[in-house]
Amino acid sequence: MDTAKEPRIKLGMVGGGRDAFIGAVHRIAARMDDHYQLVAGAFSSTEEKSLASAKDLGIAEDRAYGDYTEMAKREARIKNGIEAVAIVTPNHMHYPVAREFLKRGIHVICDKPLTSTMADAKRLAKSAESSGALFALTHNYTGYPMVRQARDMIRSGSLGKIRVIQVEYAQDWLSTKLEETGQKQAGWRTDPERSGAGGSIGDIGTHALNLATFVTGHKPESLCADLDSFVDGRQLDDNAHILLRYNDGVKGMLWSSQVAPGNENALRLRVYGTDGGLEWAQEDPNYLWHTPLGEPKRLLTRNGSGANDAATSVSRIPPGHPEGYLEGFANIYTDVAQAIIARRSDDKAKGEYLFPTIHDGLAGMAFVNAAVNSSKRGGAWVKLEF
Amino acid sequence: MDTAKEPRIKLGMVGGGRDAFIGAVHRIAARMDDHYQLVAGAFSSTEEKSLASAKDLGIAEDRAYGDYTEMAKREARIKNGIEAVAIVTPNHMHYPVAREFLKRGIHVICDKPLTSTMADAKRLAKSAESSGALFALTHNYTGYPMVRQARDMIRSGSLGKIRVIQVEYAQDWLSTKLEETGQKQAGWRTDPERSGAGGSIGDIGTHALNLATFVTGHKPESLCADLDSFVDGRQLDDNAHILLRYNDGVKGMLWSSQVAPGNENALRLRVYGTDGGLEWAQEDPNYLWHTPLGEPKRLLTRNGSGANDAATSVSRIPPGHPEGYLEGFANIYTDVAQAIIARRSDDKAKGEYLFPTIHDGLAGMAFVNAAVNSSKRGGAWVKLEF
Amino acid sequence: MDTAKEPRIKLGMVGGGRDAFIGAVHRIAARMDDHYQLVAGAFSSTEEKSLASAKDLGIAEDRAYGDYTEMAKREARIKNGIEAVAIVTPNHMHYPVAREFLKRGIHVICDKPLTSTMADAKRLAKSAESSGALFALTHNYTGYPMVRQARDMIRSGSLGKIRVIQVEYAQDWLSTKLEETGQKQAGWRTDPERSGAGGSIGDIGTHALNLATFVTGHKPESLCADLDSFVDGRQLDDNAHILLRYNDGVKGMLWSSQVAPGNENALRLRVYGTDGGLEWAQEDPNYLWHTPLGEPKRLLTRNGSGANDAATSVSRIPPGHPEGYLEGFANIYTDVAQAIIARRSDDKAKGEYLFPTIHDGLAGMAFVNAAVNSSKRGGAWVKLEF
Amino acid sequence: MDTAKEPRIKLGMVGGGRDAFIGAVHRIAARMDDHYQLVAGAFSSTEEKSLASAKDLGIAEDRAYGDYTEMAKREARIKNGIEAVAIVTPNHMHYPVAREFLKRGIHVICDKPLTSTMADAKRLAKSAESSGALFALTHNYTGYPMVRQARDMIRSGSLGKIRVIQVEYAQDWLSTKLEETGQKQAGWRTDPERSGAGGSIGDIGTHALNLATFVTGHKPESLCADLDSFVDGRQLDDNAHILLRYNDGVKGMLWSSQVAPGNENALRLRVYGTDGGLEWAQEDPNYLWHTPLGEPKRLLTRNGSGANDAATSVSRIPPGHPEGYLEGFANIYTDVAQAIIARRSDDKAKGEYLFPTIHDGLAGMAFVNAAVNSSKRGGAWVKLEF
Repeated sequence: MDTAKEPRIKLGMVGGGRDAFIGAVHRIAARMDDHYQLVAGAFSSTEEKSLASAKDLGIAEDRAYGDYTEMAKREARIKNGIEAVAIVTPNHMHYPVAREFLKRGIHVICDKPLTSTMADAKRLAKSAESSGALFALTHNYTGYPMVRQARDMIRSGSLGKIRVIQVEYAQDWLSTKLEETGQKQAGWRTDPERSGAGGSIGDIGTHALNLATFVTGHKPESLCADLDSFVDGRQLDDNAHILLRYNDGVKGMLWSSQVAPGNENALRLRVYGTDGGLEWAQEDPNYLWHTPLGEPKRLLTRNGSGANDAATSVSRIPPGHPEGYLEGFANIYTDVAQAIIARRSDDKAKGEYLFPTIHDGLAGMAFVNAAVNSSKRGGAWVKLEF
Repeated sequence: MDTAKEPRIKLGMVGGGRDAFIGAVHRIAARMDDHYQLVAGAFSSTEEKSLASAKDLGIAEDRAYGDYTEMAKREARIKNGIEAVAIVTPNHMHYPVAREFLKRGIHVICDKPLTSTMADAKRLAKSAESSGALFALTHNYTGYPMVRQARDMIRSGSLGKIRVIQVEYAQDWLSTKLEETGQKQAGWRTDPERSGAGGSIGDIGTHALNLATFVTGHKPESLCADLDSFVDGRQLDDNAHILLRYNDGVKGMLWSSQVAPGNENALRLRVYGTDGGLEWAQEDPNYLWHTPLGEPKRLLTRNGSGANDAATSVSRIPPGHPEGYLEGFANIYTDVAQAIIARRSDDKAKGEYLFPTIHDGLAGMAFVNAAVNSSKRGGAWVKLEF
Repeated sequence: MDTAKEPRIKLGMVGGGRDAFIGAVHRIAARMDDHYQLVAGAFSSTEEKSLASAKDLGIAEDRAYGDYTEMAKREARIKNGIEAVAIVTPNHMHYPVAREFLKRGIHVICDKPLTSTMADAKRLAKSAESSGALFALTHNYTGYPMVRQARDMIRSGSLGKIRVIQVEYAQDWLSTKLEETGQKQAGWRTDPERSGAGGSIGDIGTHALNLATFVTGHKPESLCADLDSFVDGRQLDDNAHILLRYNDGVKGMLWSSQVAPGNENALRLRVYGTDGGLEWAQEDPNYLWHTPLGEPKRLLTRNGSGANDAATSVSRIPPGHPEGYLEGFANIYTDVAQAIIARRSDDKAKGEYLFPTIHDGLAGMAFVNAAVNSSKRGGAWVKLEF
Repeated sequence: MDTAKEPRIKLGMVGGGRDAFIGAVHRIAARMDDHYQLVAGAFSSTEEKSLASAKDLGIAEDRAYGDYTEMAKREARIKNGIEAVAIVTPNHMHYPVAREFLKRGIHVICDKPLTSTMADAKRLAKSAESSGALFALTHNYTGYPMVRQARDMIRSGSLGKIRVIQVEYAQDWLSTKLEETGQKQAGWRTDPERSGAGGSIGDIGTHALNLATFVTGHKPESLCADLDSFVDGRQLDDNAHILLRYNDGVKGMLWSSQVAPGNENALRLRVYGTDGGLEWAQEDPNYLWHTPLGEPKRLLTRNGSGANDAATSVSRIPPGHPEGYLEGFANIYTDVAQAIIARRSDDKAKGEYLFPTIHDGLAGMAFVNAAVNSSKRGGAWVKLEF
């Protein structure tokens, strides 16, 4: 993963100040393969706090901003201004922030879900399309090597025709009313104003669906959802049971929960086709079960015997030395870096990007909307539209 | 499990001739704890074949029957005739056979599902109710010690209020059109005439639901089902995706599949409540995960540290020496034996039986019916009624 | 496992009265496949206690003995006397009891280890050789289907030339001074008078070594042992660390412990050759890892894809329905039954028996002796001799 | 892990040019938490190759050296010269390189094992002692959070008095004569000139022993070793079986192998005491089994319920999001960074460092020497001395 170096990409960040969780993750991910250099940020909504964070991070004082619009304007103008920005704010701020950078041709790497409303999502899609800049959405689980391997195996026909997709993402951290304790993460994630209409389905269900579609290539066409807010007084769902019908007659189930004690980040995908199956679990990401029909199960390992190019090309170390969440996240950053570097010499450079894009974001919003509508209508079947 | 002995129960069997699978299982289960003695049988539909099986099994020639009605009549009449009969025929024969024995006061141990139609199921329920004899249905998975432990823990409040029930039973043996190869098991299990309206849901989905209700005590009230026959030309479902609403606001999902490569008998139950969770898998039955909220996960072992009476009372050997499917099945037989022995001295003897009864059979039939109806109506929500 | 029946073998038992553990295991094992009928016993050392046990077990009063010599004499004389006897006493009684039955031509199924001293072991070997009767030793772990599969794979060359054998058997039940609490099992197993010179090495180390030699076919030639009695005042070892040199340059390690908290019956074998490896664990006995060099790991399942005849011929039920300790134990009993039945028509009938014999018993005694001697000499290398 | 920032530590590297494996690992580890900035290097033994690597890594041309002595001299002299150097050469070069930097007060982070000979090791120890600079050895497995947790639990008495330590490190990559194929890693690791007297014991056995002593605090006093070179013509051991006697009567076994098919980097530690046990495996590093005697097993997770400060203080992300090998390695770099930063203001600053030091290196050399001597003497018991 040390590759002949282009000059590092100058990166800015919006959000991610002290106490934020995901900002630090983005920073490590950007640093991992040494393609980026963090040089500017509007880390918080006041200049003072933003400056404190900048200082922590070794960023020059004059590149710390209290206002993201000002940051976009100035960075677009100055010499050696940022080429890309990471947006790690709560969901409702994704659109207004991204717009400012996109319209100035600055590439955007945005946390998921895309926005808090479908209306914003569509506006953002327009911004992204009309911009010359790239837009990447950090559905980071698609960066895991064995997820890449699974996708490649299905594309090359290892499973035959797909029949069934089982995907789930279970957590337990919202089993009690944590949002009342002042816990910041719990606060905004259970607040419709900042998160949007989806609770668990927006926060983690979209990851699950994105993983299923990334790996299998099948698109959900309709769903039937039973959403619950098991914790008294919670406004957004904390548990979702969903049946899915994908194109080509593929059927699926999806479970997302934040009230399942004993589950930390239990994202798990199982795919079954006419010729075999695949099983992968995020908490044990260096392994992929392949179950060819009528043969013994095989445990494929990252970079080990049976690994394919799709996996080894995004692995850093030998098999048996585990890579984890941060490495998978970094793979998204590195994919984006390669696309950005290609744009340097050819501003129309295109490719089939493996990193998630605006399209994945819209699909996620359509999923959340459909699920909420289905549940409101008593669990009726609803089409996914965007 | 060697207990002070009452005289062994004289047992007969209908079905279970050469090449049948489940008959041999019932025989080993009956033998395990030495409460039964197999002395008579109508093992096949012709006297000649039945006699051959009887000979294999060391049963006297004059206790081999070609006709179950004749068997019921004669065994009820002779000295030392059978006290109980095991019925291990295809589903459509459960009712007519059971009726003959029940009306003569002979206890019935019947394989699941109850019958092939709801009409037969209701008739059989009447037969059972009007009979003085016991009726047991071999939803054998409820006999596993750690399943008993799970039930007991939930009853005693270890999980707090239950919120979510995830249950699934996946197999792969019908991934291809095995029924066309002459394989006997595949033949009748995919034939609506002999199996009834449910394919995978009748054969294994009923086991999954029975396990969920046995362990949690919650009853399903309505469901929404998406059934598929993925193998071309198959008449019954081979994959079922189901959302469930249980009483008291408990929500669940149920997946049954016979087309999921790599799954042998992957029956798995996960239950989550306000205070903790439990996870159990049939293929690894000596273990039970207990996940109290906010504490480390605990792996409870059969007869080991943390085992409760509900589990140890049905264990034969020390922890770390695995018991399996046959031992779990035998626990049902032993439960029934204890009830039969109690009846010997008091023919009204009652108790809360842990073994599954006619009620569980009716619930299973209601589940199959509801699922088939829901799926026919495009996945509408349907109530479970019986 | 229901096979065309010869008349059941009349079986007697010495030891195994109330509160004994292993007697009940032998009885279930004998019953499992319906080849035996328990008809006589000297279950305890007094006639009264023996009679009480006989009553529990449904055995005729006149076949309950307080004295094993009397039992041997009478059973050899009476019509329909026992053909075989199961000896389930503490170790020091194996020899005197077995001798009485062997010299009267009654087949012996004896619990392990062979005896409490090498002198007794050699005498017993002579008794067995001069007798026309069979002698089987219940190193029961060799009865597990996947152990049979492993042996067969190695014989047929799947692993190439063997290099390394890692075997261990860890328990925790003697972590404290349980023998002082009056616990009967702990009492005799830590008493050199009744157990012999080996503590953990005799009780479970012999199982581990027997498993290693059964599966690989390699014989230990010398060893170096470090034995400890970690619990204060305990006379026999409760932990043993041993290096082994087998024939043909194969090297091994063996660990036995009864003071390893968290280990119930953690018997585990790993074998590595030039072309691949195998790993098996008794607590998860239906699975066998096969790791062909340079290919993905494969998880072989009992009776599933990849199972060979050696495994399927001793399996009763389909893959995914676990068989356990009792079924493995029963496989030894069934192997012996087949040998006994062959002797009925041909009293010189021989075969290569898969069940453990006197030879395995002597090998086990030689192992215990060598380990004790090595440890006494500060961990010197000692040859195994018998 | 984003902490208020001191200026980044200027880091140099010796070794780690194109095609080297461990150099890239050190670079990612150094970058992870943003404490270091790689600014100089003698990446290869020729200036041309070193320059090519420097270019790849974005390092200024005038900081690329073909000679480590020149590098040490110049970097010690120039303004903003390196404060620390990472040495990632083959073993025999560790001493001469480290000496040059240590004598100029430049901190050294050195790959393990310490050197290729005990004589060099002692010289290096003297260099380190007489230098004002820090010396860290990257026994990186001690950086894993759950290893830190295990150490802390044992220190605080969770296991009571330790009795038994089982440790092993198995690989399969040298199962064939890979060194003859031109594979560079295999080449120097099997060459006594460059690696020293130990093959598998030097390369991975030292890691295993270091892990055992780090976690338990017990020191090995004597050992008995049986080393083999199973691959024909190989000069160094590729498999080692070792019995260990630690201080205070603790006993242990250690297995290192590079010829065990199916093992990638199977480093595994199990520790048992009077009150409980702990089990940890490097390939699944986010989990730690705790088995308190007489209670159910508990699965402790990184940063999850039951995690202690020793673990959480070196974790970056929430439980269920796995951290891996690179994060563990980075923890060593961050520990060293904190020590270096403390030295900036107080050049005598000391502390109990958690990172491995020269002492660990000497202990590893003593282990290799003792094992080689023991094996040469037929497996005699040998004291560990240094």
